Amino acid sequence: MNNKPTLHTSLSPALLHLYDLSNSIVVIIDVFRATSTIAAALKNGAKCVIPVDTVPKAIEISKNIGGIAAGERDGRVAEGLEHGNSPLEYGPDFIAGKTLVLTTTNGTRLLHMALDNKADTIISGSFPNLSSVCDFLKKENKNVVLGCAGWKDRFNLEDTLFAGAVISRVKKQFTIHCDSSLMAETMYDKHKKDLVGYAPNLTHYHRLVERFGLIEDIRFCLTADVADVLPQYHDGKLIVK
Amino acid sequence: MNNKPTLHTSLSPALLHLYDLSNSIVVIIDVFRATSTIAAALKNGAKCVIPVDTVPKAIEISKNIGGIAAGERDGRVAEGLEHGNSPLEYGPDFIAGKTLVLTTTNGTRLLHMALDNKADTIISGSFPNLSSVCDFLKKENKNVVLGCAGWKDRFNLEDTLFAGAVISRVKKQFTIHCDSSLMAETMYDKHKKDLVGYAPNLTHYHRLVERFGLIEDIRFCLTADVADVLPQYHDGKLIVK
Repeated sequence: MNNKPTLHTSLSPALLHLYDLSNSIVVIIDVFRATSTIAAALKNGAKCVIPVDTVPKAIEISKNIGGIAAGERDGRVAEGLEHGNSPLEYGPDFIAGKTLVLTTTNGTRLLHMALDNKADTIISGSFPNLSSVCDFLKKENKNVVLGCAGWKDRFNLEDTLFAGAVISRVKKQFTIHCDSSLMAETMYDKHKKDLVGYAPNLTHYHRLVERFGLIEDIRFCLTADVADVLPQYHDGKLIVK
Repeated sequence: MNNKPTLHTSLSPALLHLYDLSNSIVVIIDVFRATSTIAAALKNGAKCVIPVDTVPKAIEISKNIGGIAAGERDGRVAEGLEHGNSPLEYGPDFIAGKTLVLTTTNGTRLLHMALDNKADTIISGSFPNLSSVCDFLKKENKNVVLGCAGWKDRFNLEDTLFAGAVISRVKKQFTIHCDSSLMAETMYDKHKKDLVGYAPNLTHYHRLVERFGLIEDIRFCLTADVADVLPQYHDGKLIVK
């Protein structure tokens, strides 16, 4: 009898409800750039990251606790905020010891959906903290749902590639009957040797690089283990586990 | 200026609303097995196929018009019907000159969603009628949405592989900024030489072959141009265009 826990990949927030989250670890994946930024801020000493769904809420909470309000809408620093969603903004000199109150288009929304669907455990993942995510999943021995944030509910490849990277590292310990996961691993396997070289093919590359010039962000977000911590959600906050 | 029409791939019925269908040809894709069966029945001389969403409706309509009521629920002939959803059931001796009233789990539902979303033109596609679909898309010069039926809103690979097959043949005539389409083409390109050999990796293979023994169905459904007609939806019916 096969007693391994299951692993599924949800390719869009609009598909998350199809999976049973109540007994699962849900990995929130928003590679460009929310979950990469969360990893960077926590790696660089932020006390915690508070993910919120609206700009006014980010402003209000950060005022109350003396935190840094940050976030993006449609890939730009949101109106009323001073800091955006670039992982490179949050070096140790700036963020150590502080609380980052972050609102983003897709990642924050997915996290709140996972909460609403009573996820057992929520962590955030991206290439910068790939190893920490995989180590945790292997250690916990629970069912896993890899939740891709996508872009306004559309499928995107960078989140899928990260899901594939996780699957390729942990699959021996899981039962995987899931076409999304098979596809994700295949796509990752095909492009893993040069993710940055593949990036110009992605829809988001055009938005981030051609419109906003964020090539250094792209490089950071596609590099494994450059901010290798495990952000876990607990009581409204992402903290290092 | 680029005046080519656009092409997008919707990986699940739950994502179809993200695309503008009102100026588009929507290709309904349900490879295992609704759209393969539709192609087979029409190729073998069926007058038309009437897709309906419930079993009672299939029975009622077929009684009224002297048609063949057929359909599946969860991969089996639905209770109250005598014919299922195997393309091999609909040879010319049986189906020529008749009307097939078909209800299926995923494909019919997607077709009705496309109607509700005011699709400009609806056709059905599968490997058995791959060339007819591609020829039509190239000739019409309109925007295209490739609509994968999936399985109860989950992503599946066989529909995605067919989307990829279409994209690989028509892409020069379209503007494609769509990660789903890029992924579909990549997956198809990787497996096109032996789709039947790849099939045991697909979730549906287990259901159809291990539970129901339908390996010949799988072969038919993955073979290009064995029922090469163009079913187009018009006034409640799919007819050969």
